[in-house]
Amino acid sequence: MSAIHKFTGNHHKYAWDGIEKKELNQEGLKGITKSVLIGTVDLAPNSIMRFFQIQSGGHSRLERHPQEHEVIVLHGKGKVRIGEHIHEVTVHDVVFISSNELHQFSNPFDEPFGFICVIPRGF
Amino acid sequence: MSAIHKFTGNHHKYAWDGIEKKELNQEGLKGITKSVLIGTVDLAPNSIMRFFQIQSGGHSRLERHPQEHEVIVLHGKGKVRIGEHIHEVTVHDVVFISSNELHQFSNPFDEPFGFICVIPRGF
Repeated sequence: MSAIHKFTGNHHKYAWDGIEKKELNQEGLKGITKSVLIGTVDLAPNSIMRFFQIQSGGHSRLERHPQEHEVIVLHGKGKVRIGEHIHEVTVHDVVFISSNELHQFSNPFDEPFGFICVIPRGF
Repeated sequence: MSAIHKFTGNHHKYAWDGIEKKELNQEGLKGITKSVLIGTVDLAPNSIMRFFQIQSGGHSRLERHPQEHEVIVLHGKGKVRIGEHIHEVTVHDVVFISSNELHQFSNPFDEPFGFICVIPRGF
């Protein structure tokens, strides 16, 4: 069903009406939260839109998997490893990580780093 | 193939490295440009990430179609009609428009209104 989730945060605290923010406490991750913006509540059939925030000094897992990532940065800056290359990215930069490509997001900077990441449903 | 498209614009002019911006001159539309951020160059297999900007006084077509929309506002504010309801949306608000729902984006405000809109591939 169609839905609107109003942004209820501010420049420092990212939050949306009706959306839960989860601290990810898994091996290989550090200082990272995940908010599923579209996909769970709305039963979107094809894609899941998530927001991740990585604190200063944090990182996602270095991994590869079949589902590709479509990313746009919302705030701060961070680094993205894709294969053997590391790229610095900042607000509104766009990143496509294709299927089974080794990748990792990290934040060696002073401010939190937040980005949208869309994946296909069903993995 | 994985790719990075650096944001090369500013608060007033949204642009990305290697991404073409197209003025949409079709019946039922007014003052709207489209930039395909992920989908064409990168051969993303499942979803297409687009950026639309609607100038003050502009609007998208009032339409319904099978492909759903996953939207997040990047700048400005606008209105979204979904079915019979009209919602005002602003920066970082999230909108899900489900399959075959009647919808229209419009900008009755003074500043340009820009948003990301993800659709499934293959329609």
